[in-house]
Amino acid sequence: MVSARADSAIRPLRLGMVGGGEGAFIGAVHRMAARLDGQFELVAGALSSTPEKALRSAAALGLDPARSYPDFAAMARREARLKEGIEAVAIVTPNHQHVPAALAFLKAGIAVICDKPLASTLKDARRLQRAAEAVGTIFCVTYNYSGYPMVRQARAMVAEGLLGDLRVVQVEYPQDWLTESLESTGQKQADWRTDPARAGAGGCIGDIGTHAYQLTEFVTGFTVSELAADLSHFVPGRRVDDNAQILLRFNNGARGMLWASQVAPGNENGLKLRVYGSKGGLEWRQEHPNHLTWTPFGEAPRTLTRGGAGISVAAARVTRVPSGHPEGYLEAFATLYTEVARSIRARAAGEACPADVTFPTLTDGVRGMAFIEAAVRSSSGNARWVKLPEV
Amino acid sequence: MVSARADSAIRPLRLGMVGGGEGAFIGAVHRMAARLDGQFELVAGALSSTPEKALRSAAALGLDPARSYPDFAAMARREARLKEGIEAVAIVTPNHQHVPAALAFLKAGIAVICDKPLASTLKDARRLQRAAEAVGTIFCVTYNYSGYPMVRQARAMVAEGLLGDLRVVQVEYPQDWLTESLESTGQKQADWRTDPARAGAGGCIGDIGTHAYQLTEFVTGFTVSELAADLSHFVPGRRVDDNAQILLRFNNGARGMLWASQVAPGNENGLKLRVYGSKGGLEWRQEHPNHLTWTPFGEAPRTLTRGGAGISVAAARVTRVPSGHPEGYLEAFATLYTEVARSIRARAAGEACPADVTFPTLTDGVRGMAFIEAAVRSSSGNARWVKLPEV
Amino acid sequence: MVSARADSAIRPLRLGMVGGGEGAFIGAVHRMAARLDGQFELVAGALSSTPEKALRSAAALGLDPARSYPDFAAMARREARLKEGIEAVAIVTPNHQHVPAALAFLKAGIAVICDKPLASTLKDARRLQRAAEAVGTIFCVTYNYSGYPMVRQARAMVAEGLLGDLRVVQVEYPQDWLTESLESTGQKQADWRTDPARAGAGGCIGDIGTHAYQLTEFVTGFTVSELAADLSHFVPGRRVDDNAQILLRFNNGARGMLWASQVAPGNENGLKLRVYGSKGGLEWRQEHPNHLTWTPFGEAPRTLTRGGAGISVAAARVTRVPSGHPEGYLEAFATLYTEVARSIRARAAGEACPADVTFPTLTDGVRGMAFIEAAVRSSSGNARWVKLPEV
Amino acid sequence: MVSARADSAIRPLRLGMVGGGEGAFIGAVHRMAARLDGQFELVAGALSSTPEKALRSAAALGLDPARSYPDFAAMARREARLKEGIEAVAIVTPNHQHVPAALAFLKAGIAVICDKPLASTLKDARRLQRAAEAVGTIFCVTYNYSGYPMVRQARAMVAEGLLGDLRVVQVEYPQDWLTESLESTGQKQADWRTDPARAGAGGCIGDIGTHAYQLTEFVTGFTVSELAADLSHFVPGRRVDDNAQILLRFNNGARGMLWASQVAPGNENGLKLRVYGSKGGLEWRQEHPNHLTWTPFGEAPRTLTRGGAGISVAAARVTRVPSGHPEGYLEAFATLYTEVARSIRARAAGEACPADVTFPTLTDGVRGMAFIEAAVRSSSGNARWVKLPEV
Repeated sequence: MVSARADSAIRPLRLGMVGGGEGAFIGAVHRMAARLDGQFELVAGALSSTPEKALRSAAALGLDPARSYPDFAAMARREARLKEGIEAVAIVTPNHQHVPAALAFLKAGIAVICDKPLASTLKDARRLQRAAEAVGTIFCVTYNYSGYPMVRQARAMVAEGLLGDLRVVQVEYPQDWLTESLESTGQKQADWRTDPARAGAGGCIGDIGTHAYQLTEFVTGFTVSELAADLSHFVPGRRVDDNAQILLRFNNGARGMLWASQVAPGNENGLKLRVYGSKGGLEWRQEHPNHLTWTPFGEAPRTLTRGGAGISVAAARVTRVPSGHPEGYLEAFATLYTEVARSIRARAAGEACPADVTFPTLTDGVRGMAFIEAAVRSSSGNARWVKLPEV
Repeated sequence: MVSARADSAIRPLRLGMVGGGEGAFIGAVHRMAARLDGQFELVAGALSSTPEKALRSAAALGLDPARSYPDFAAMARREARLKEGIEAVAIVTPNHQHVPAALAFLKAGIAVICDKPLASTLKDARRLQRAAEAVGTIFCVTYNYSGYPMVRQARAMVAEGLLGDLRVVQVEYPQDWLTESLESTGQKQADWRTDPARAGAGGCIGDIGTHAYQLTEFVTGFTVSELAADLSHFVPGRRVDDNAQILLRFNNGARGMLWASQVAPGNENGLKLRVYGSKGGLEWRQEHPNHLTWTPFGEAPRTLTRGGAGISVAAARVTRVPSGHPEGYLEAFATLYTEVARSIRARAAGEACPADVTFPTLTDGVRGMAFIEAAVRSSSGNARWVKLPEV
Repeated sequence: MVSARADSAIRPLRLGMVGGGEGAFIGAVHRMAARLDGQFELVAGALSSTPEKALRSAAALGLDPARSYPDFAAMARREARLKEGIEAVAIVTPNHQHVPAALAFLKAGIAVICDKPLASTLKDARRLQRAAEAVGTIFCVTYNYSGYPMVRQARAMVAEGLLGDLRVVQVEYPQDWLTESLESTGQKQADWRTDPARAGAGGCIGDIGTHAYQLTEFVTGFTVSELAADLSHFVPGRRVDDNAQILLRFNNGARGMLWASQVAPGNENGLKLRVYGSKGGLEWRQEHPNHLTWTPFGEAPRTLTRGGAGISVAAARVTRVPSGHPEGYLEAFATLYTEVARSIRARAAGEACPADVTFPTLTDGVRGMAFIEAAVRSSSGNARWVKLPEV
Repeated sequence: MVSARADSAIRPLRLGMVGGGEGAFIGAVHRMAARLDGQFELVAGALSSTPEKALRSAAALGLDPARSYPDFAAMARREARLKEGIEAVAIVTPNHQHVPAALAFLKAGIAVICDKPLASTLKDARRLQRAAEAVGTIFCVTYNYSGYPMVRQARAMVAEGLLGDLRVVQVEYPQDWLTESLESTGQKQADWRTDPARAGAGGCIGDIGTHAYQLTEFVTGFTVSELAADLSHFVPGRRVDDNAQILLRFNNGARGMLWASQVAPGNENGLKLRVYGSKGGLEWRQEHPNHLTWTPFGEAPRTLTRGGAGISVAAARVTRVPSGHPEGYLEAFATLYTEVARSIRARAAGEACPADVTFPTLTDGVRGMAFIEAAVRSSSGNARWVKLPEV
């Protein structure tokens, strides 16, 4: 059950990082995820837009000072010319810097692993997509929940037809950390994530709603065709939404609801997906990610466990430890890194990417931006229906 | 902790029943609920519109044959003239017969306990309301979930301000029993509940959505001011909705979502309410009704238990057995009956109704109909916002 | 699914009660249980050994004053001679009065429903058993957890062989209400239950350990052949055990553990049974009694629900409301009453008792006393093995 | 909240491994754990006692062939002489090889990280302990559950007195993987773990019972003074116990029960600890390790979450990602590695080991062996009480 993948004979790939300096949350996550399976080694960074902070952060991470760069442009330029330059870059800055940074690296032929949401605007996201398609870069957008084995199990079961015709999708992602005006205390995460200039037009919808949205499409294999969104902000003075309630219609006729909130006390990262079809249902919760409830219609509900009985190849393949030993957030995140590594190695070897490699790509990233913009537009129109473009 | 109320010295009140003959589900529930606390004794009935069935059912229940009536009109007429005629009637027919039956009894001065939804149409419901107000009858609409002790606990905690300003309300009531076309098999419950002529315009929305809706208002103390509903039916040939997804706006500015479904495999009676305010949240589930999760912001979540530490008078008063010994659906239902009995006894004694008597009334019934009609209208308008009238 | 049984055409049986006056807990439970299915009507009582209290209690219950007796002896004598005397008696006194009261009624030919444990000593219990056998009385000992539908489901599944050879039994019944010295505050329940003169030699072991023990035998169909018990009392000054930890060996070779405690903070009535065999396991919890987890070896665990898919006749037969609508403690208790009623009615009609009537009898009562005495003896011998007698 | 520790500036320590070649389970776990925080780099190995397998495994892991050794003795000898030889070794062989391997490395002055149980016999374990004390080696026994943040939280809360006087300890570790005779199929893990020559006298008790035992002492701070064990094996032909039921007495007077089983269908790695004192209780489950239930007596139960409100420094210090993002088995395991690294680095710097460094040591390892031997001896004496020696 423990994947040999985790112990590849091949040397770790060289990874650079943009953002993720002192005080960052997601940068440290990316580094642990990159390290877990031994597929990547961090060797370069433009870790902060503040020069001293960039240096201090690089030193703390044991980077060669020569490969600590003042900005992503310098890093992309030089690393592209090095004999042993980075083979992939992780972009973990606030949202508005994703596109310029990604453009620099993809033009340099370096694979990109970019945090979500992909951009500040759909327009920027599309521009990036066109540029990437032109050069054919490997590009992963870290919709990390798609790395969980039981999410892959759910996806495999839906694809296999175990749910019959899909009818109803209920997804939610409640948090509580912005219940009060944390941004006015200067807390770094709250500060940029509630600033439209850095986070984009969506607050809660962009930070976590987009994860919930992506999860529905990843698991069901269908796409949201239109939505009606009621976005609100409950904390006085807040400049972006902190609560989003959205009706969804999928391209196969299924109907859905999406709730994302950052003002729901008692919720930490309560991402939860339920999908129902004519033959059965599935339920998955991020906070207890090693279980998946399967409810075939007319039968007793079953609890599938990661690594347990009845698990698909797609889920078993990304499992590290035996069932009953919980894997978590970092493992799921690491799976995306390892999938990207397989893709990079295949390309380096002149081979086709293995068919089972699965990670969210630019298409997911662009669709995520389309979702955010549609939600914002719908909400300004009093929750009128807005169609999502084909991507 | 065990309420003395359960063992009142006073003789049981005389109860009649309309509907609830052989094969009925809710009639048997009403009878057990009426019996549990010893407050009512069933003595008369018009149990079925089919005469032989009415007789057979009456015999099976041990009713005096002289008090088994062919129809509610005969029953109302005669019982009103008896020296020891019924003091209350339970109306448990399909929805379209609620209003005519209720009118007959309230005009006869007999207290009415009527199942929900109150009527087939809002107009009928309002007519009933006016008639009842004219004579001042005691009238309970059995929104039975409001009888659960931990629902009353939640209501008390919101009223006390423990949640601060209420912001978000998430309610859902998923079932799965209509996942397939049960009505085409002749099953009695499915048959009338999916027939607009007997159930009214709402299917799922009228059968269970209205419970979810009522629960939000009962617990929060606020009312829904407008809604946007996306009703669907997924089973081919079905004439009413079997899935309802609705955005809610409350009169205090809170926003909500309501999901009701009868096609969600694996869900039995999954009524669940979550409410969040500026200071904390609450979560309650009908299928585990003896617990209430309280999440004061910035503190560890607490599990309140029926009869346990920190329980309000409002909840303790309607509790029968010690904490850890589960009470369920029948107990909650019985609480409504017992509350009505207190009201009837007070009136009989020429006293004011005790201040703590709490049961859903005609106002709730009419509001429930307004909710159903608004949802249906909104959905026909492609989920446009529809305001609920003041009731 | 709703049992017609609940609405028997036959008039309620006449019930008397010994004990259960003001301030009693279990008396009120018995009365609600007797009432729920309409099978019994309380018409006589010797509700307290304190005359004024007996009268006040009888009045509060609406009993005919002529049938409120000063003691059980008077009641047994007179009721036996009445044309419409009681047909059954519920004995709900402290333990030491069970046997004398039961003897009085069984000699009068009145069916007995007696609370557990059956007696203060095994010797008394055996004496009662012999007397009852001599006259052939219907006798139920209210090991009420055996009335839960999902307990019956578990029993049916074990009997059907779905678990294969039974190997391991884990049972526990933790509470916390005696964590502090409640008896020294004068609280009535704590007072007599910790007094060896009234409760018998066992404290926790007699009050709740015996329930856990009985449940293992009821579900598995095997009997405990020997045990090794470590009883303790942690609260200074307490005269009986408040914590019991016991190794069990069953007559088929299965091994078990039993933990009962009244000093485990956070536990209310945490009765939980797990049984494992060569083919699968089962888990049931009293606090969430409507579910039963079935774990067939090598397959995904399944959650069986009361009234849901895959339920046996034995469980469905004692179910009142549809799955997803919780039934609880009172319903399970009521099932014992209704089973006894079927037994009484069959005998009155000169018929054999229906084969499916299932309630704990004197054999269970005597075995329960044997268990308590064995546990106390083992513990005084430093947890040496003590065999349970054949009963 | 994300620990800076995870990104130490200092270069990774050089790690060797004994055992853990192809097909091993725990070796891969140790490697991921060593890698996660970037504190170790695997550079040498004696990965298998089969030479070709050792070479193949080393190649698969990308080890320098010159540092792939045929046996631990050769590895200890040469690495001790290398300028950049290994600074720590992970011993992940079957149990009977732990002591000889550990002796070789500790004599070479190399820190040892050894899997549990420490040895095949208590005698061997003591011999190892004396040798280690003589040279003062850093020695960690991977009782990995003590790395979970919420286990450390529990330990901190008990130490702080929040539970009052400790009274009752209930611990269990059920699995189901040996429900059938897996060893007779040749499965590698089942093969050696049920072979007394390689696993030692204990089967289930040595493999998982010892974890449960260690957890009780780690969390409570007390030690088990005596035990009475009923060990069984249910699978025909099995040579070691597969089910262990044990009464425990602690040196402070607390009483406990321990259940470990490998034949309990539906259980994967169900390690669960409950401790109760005069003021409250705690409950923790390995399969949902990010929560800890705290039940202060007389108050509503609270759910503490890793990284959430009310968390101690001891738990927060070993937390990597925010609350609501689950950490699991590998993270807890990695924490032990990182604690050992801090210890090694402090010693290398000539500093005292930081006071908060916490990992199970030889004392725990020796106590674990004493526990196994006492359990086996008690069980052969029909569950008689056996005292554990002072260690």
